[in-house]
Amino acid sequence: MTPPPPADPRDLDRLGPVLIVGTGLIGASIGCALTSQGVEVHLSDLSPANAIVASSRGAGALEQLAPDTYRLVIVATPPAAVAPIVLERLRRHPNAIVTDVASVKESVLADLEGSGADLSRYVGSHPMSGTQFTGPITAAPELFVDRTWVVTPRPGNSPAGVERVRRLARVCGARVVSLAPHEHDTAVAEVSHLPHLMSILTGASLRHAEPGHLDLAGGGIRDVTRIARSQTGMWRQILTANRTAVRHQLEGVRDDLETLLDVLDDPDELEGFLEVGRTGARSVGGKHGREAVDTVSVIVEIPDSPGALARLFADVEKAGVNVEDLSVEHDRSRETGFLSIDVDPGRAADLRAWMKGHGWGLRS
Amino acid sequence: MTPPPPADPRDLDRLGPVLIVGTGLIGASIGCALTSQGVEVHLSDLSPANAIVASSRGAGALEQLAPDTYRLVIVATPPAAVAPIVLERLRRHPNAIVTDVASVKESVLADLEGSGADLSRYVGSHPMSGTQFTGPITAAPELFVDRTWVVTPRPGNSPAGVERVRRLARVCGARVVSLAPHEHDTAVAEVSHLPHLMSILTGASLRHAEPGHLDLAGGGIRDVTRIARSQTGMWRQILTANRTAVRHQLEGVRDDLETLLDVLDDPDELEGFLEVGRTGARSVGGKHGREAVDTVSVIVEIPDSPGALARLFADVEKAGVNVEDLSVEHDRSRETGFLSIDVDPGRAADLRAWMKGHGWGLRS
Repeated sequence: MTPPPPADPRDLDRLGPVLIVGTGLIGASIGCALTSQGVEVHLSDLSPANAIVASSRGAGALEQLAPDTYRLVIVATPPAAVAPIVLERLRRHPNAIVTDVASVKESVLADLEGSGADLSRYVGSHPMSGTQFTGPITAAPELFVDRTWVVTPRPGNSPAGVERVRRLARVCGARVVSLAPHEHDTAVAEVSHLPHLMSILTGASLRHAEPGHLDLAGGGIRDVTRIARSQTGMWRQILTANRTAVRHQLEGVRDDLETLLDVLDDPDELEGFLEVGRTGARSVGGKHGREAVDTVSVIVEIPDSPGALARLFADVEKAGVNVEDLSVEHDRSRETGFLSIDVDPGRAADLRAWMKGHGWGLRS
Repeated sequence: MTPPPPADPRDLDRLGPVLIVGTGLIGASIGCALTSQGVEVHLSDLSPANAIVASSRGAGALEQLAPDTYRLVIVATPPAAVAPIVLERLRRHPNAIVTDVASVKESVLADLEGSGADLSRYVGSHPMSGTQFTGPITAAPELFVDRTWVVTPRPGNSPAGVERVRRLARVCGARVVSLAPHEHDTAVAEVSHLPHLMSILTGASLRHAEPGHLDLAGGGIRDVTRIARSQTGMWRQILTANRTAVRHQLEGVRDDLETLLDVLDDPDELEGFLEVGRTGARSVGGKHGREAVDTVSVIVEIPDSPGALARLFADVEKAGVNVEDLSVEHDRSRETGFLSIDVDPGRAADLRAWMKGHGWGLRS
């Protein structure tokens, strides 16, 4: 239970009292994060057992304050229940900003707008986090640290109301991104819902395989199918709520699949297609989807004696630079070998200086 | 550099001298594994620099023995070069069994058979291992430990010849699976080549995304696209060599994709499809693709007091059973809560006994 780093006192100022409605993994974890920062949190759940578990994990208090006391209400129920509960809470808590944590925003908003209610105090949000677990038992205050938390303001919101939800996200340790609801839904279809369905399709293809063939499964297929192993009930709701954007993504894959079938017999065109996929994959390869797309090679001359080569490996390791790839190149004209060390462009100069300082010959 | 566990002396008996032709990651790592078991290994590579690096990693000696001395020749060159080099080595080493490590077997065999040569001493194999690296620099003797090594015998092989290749695999610490060449290629299309292309297709879909949307990428898409980040040159060769089986797999996905688009607006049918994918994903979920497909729930009554609940969590953790999922259930008729602990079916009895022994009430 590592709490998020201490929040900016300005973010904490009069953020609470907070009411969390729905104490599953996300709601309870928000509670744990807030209480770890000293924010006053109260919990409400249709299932008393869930609320008790969440409270025992440190997510907040079970007793309730007067309804007009809350400054922030977080609706963290399953997606299908979000809109009616947001409407109810807007009515009951006249001094509160009401937010939700649903992973699809447009359909919630459409339901809310259809009600005709005043939505000026409703500011949608989506903390992008999750584990294979679903209940409050594995709630943890660090669940949002360094994760993205999308806030989806609407034209009718007050700047102060939007800022209150942004402060909530920052206090939980998250990186805040603001997107319009429609754009949010497009983005999660691209980076979350489509990948989930690609994982599902890969898993589904295995139903045709002989059981003995599964013995040949290695790390690659386990990576691709990992997210398909999660519970289907939540994904049914998410995909249904975002089905327009998801359909658009799937149709794009259908087109690409036809292209792939067309180029399968032409190695050059096939490799071109593989490069398109590789470039996309590398664009989300980093810890925060922000790592450099490409690497730079630092090329060191390999000395004649095998003993010196062992020293060369050792010095590369000691340089403390993360090596993305290593290869040996042979220069036929000079009968010399070179070691090519691929590293992040930002670290290449460091590695060059280090290797030079340790007496190695570099090819510029 | 952890060597594989000591081999059975019967497997080591007159296994060598071994000649490894091609000292990339796989060839050099086989060399390291064999020398760590005391087998005599010699190395050959078109690139002297590669062979020198491999030898300095402990893969074997650079000098060559008389050609008729070798008992086993391992051709570990890039796929496109395998067939001609196997033929050359069958001619040059009359006392050796010749094997290769190519990841597609039928096309190699077709090329060999087309030559009209006597192939009784050729036994194909495929050690299923690999990292993001490609050269001998990261060669390691443990690369094959607990990995699958497929041996693909042909009708004309002698049992002793097939056994010599199986011994090679066991000495390297691998689990040996025997498959006919055609069946091997079908199996790797299912569990390796198709998943690679699904990862590529997912990566390719990102070319349409706004750069800012990639900020929302989380662990899920990074898992799905991880293998698409690897070098395309090798995959071009693998997919081209196995394109018939790969095409069949892709056509199956095309059909499933149409089904998925059809059911996207029907939540029940959609969830049914998600379950098919989840079942397949779970069938390869374990470390060796052998983990139980399903879990069993052990259900413990949650006591009234929050203090007791903390003890309950602690006891579940101390049980030392790997927990796949946890959930809280509320029994409305009795106003009681239950903790449902999902575990491997083989461990459920242990967990039940442990919890009972620590005074917890179980729901049978």
